[in-house]
Amino acid sequence: MTQGSIIDTLAFRAGEIILYPGSPGPRDRIYRVESGLVRIQSVDDDGNALTLRFVRPGEYFGEEALSGGERRYHAEAAADTRIAQIHPERMDPQETLNLAVRLALALGQTYDAIQRLVSQRLKNRIAAALLEFMDTPLAVHDTKGRVMIHVTHDEIASAVGSVRETVTKVVGELARDGLIKSGYGRVMLLDIEALGELARQNG
Amino acid sequence: MTQGSIIDTLAFRAGEIILYPGSPGPRDRIYRVESGLVRIQSVDDDGNALTLRFVRPGEYFGEEALSGGERRYHAEAAADTRIAQIHPERMDPQETLNLAVRLALALGQTYDAIQRLVSQRLKNRIAAALLEFMDTPLAVHDTKGRVMIHVTHDEIASAVGSVRETVTKVVGELARDGLIKSGYGRVMLLDIEALGELARQNG
Repeated sequence: MTQGSIIDTLAFRAGEIILYPGSPGPRDRIYRVESGLVRIQSVDDDGNALTLRFVRPGEYFGEEALSGGERRYHAEAAADTRIAQIHPERMDPQETLNLAVRLALALGQTYDAIQRLVSQRLKNRIAAALLEFMDTPLAVHDTKGRVMIHVTHDEIASAVGSVRETVTKVVGELARDGLIKSGYGRVMLLDIEALGELARQNG
Repeated sequence: MTQGSIIDTLAFRAGEIILYPGSPGPRDRIYRVESGLVRIQSVDDDGNALTLRFVRPGEYFGEEALSGGERRYHAEAAADTRIAQIHPERMDPQETLNLAVRLALALGQTYDAIQRLVSQRLKNRIAAALLEFMDTPLAVHDTKGRVMIHVTHDEIASAVGSVRETVTKVVGELARDGLIKSGYGRVMLLDIEALGELARQNG
């Protein structure tokens, strides 16, 4: 990996906003997540948050610095996060190719998100979202094969395109079914296989 | 624009399938639309089609040839279309950068699609979809400033993540409101300003 295009690396604490909506200016950069997790999220006029994508280590965001399109999202550190600031005009061919590959993968992720929103019920989407958190810093694996996800019902609602009240109801159903155990600001995954089955189901 | 990576250009008639779902193999290419329009669409087990993205001239599809991700969509010529086949390993730096810019724009389009699905009612999404067709080969502009879109209710349903029966009902409402006139396989846009207002509204 080339270092020539990297201007700086920056650290953010969980919950800090990295990028605000707006038009990218000449000082805008492309960002690569080095460690942690970044949530790409829009907020509507009523204050409802919607997660558009999670950005994991090795992946990029702020790609509108390249295309010039308006940024209509916030980028927020979902966990303690380090990012590299990349000068879009100083990328060498290898880094440009790497960026294109990662954007292609991100596009595939948003295709999946669109399909889930159209074809899956909320319960199935919540199961999928919880499993997606498993390989992020929000997850803590214990010695009994259980996984604790540090996530609020608001954050789950943002991830699945719903609101907290409705998510709380469905999280309760999943808990009664024995698939999860829900606590304050966290969800314990008890039956990962059953959650995986739900995540794959349509209708 | 470099020609070195272009293997061939191919012509497809409206309705022909260009790419099927599956894992990209070593013979898979990246495709750039030269003229026409390509619909990126998934089809669920019940046969319901869902448009994930439209690809216009200058834009690319088949980007999973680069990333190696599984292709879970069909690419279909939505109008008579010419595409250039591009060898992913023979792109020069300028073409790679161009691809990254276009993928960044495509990602922004899918962000918009996710937001519409979560926050807009069907009527607003249909207005937005009809306006999106205006700058495609599916639209014919007449001398009175009206625009005829050659699109079926099935195709509108796919574009907005709904089913034909429901779309037919809402198209009827828009027609009664005087915003459009609906015929067999086509929709005439009568009040583009009012459609634009609907397309911007949430809730």
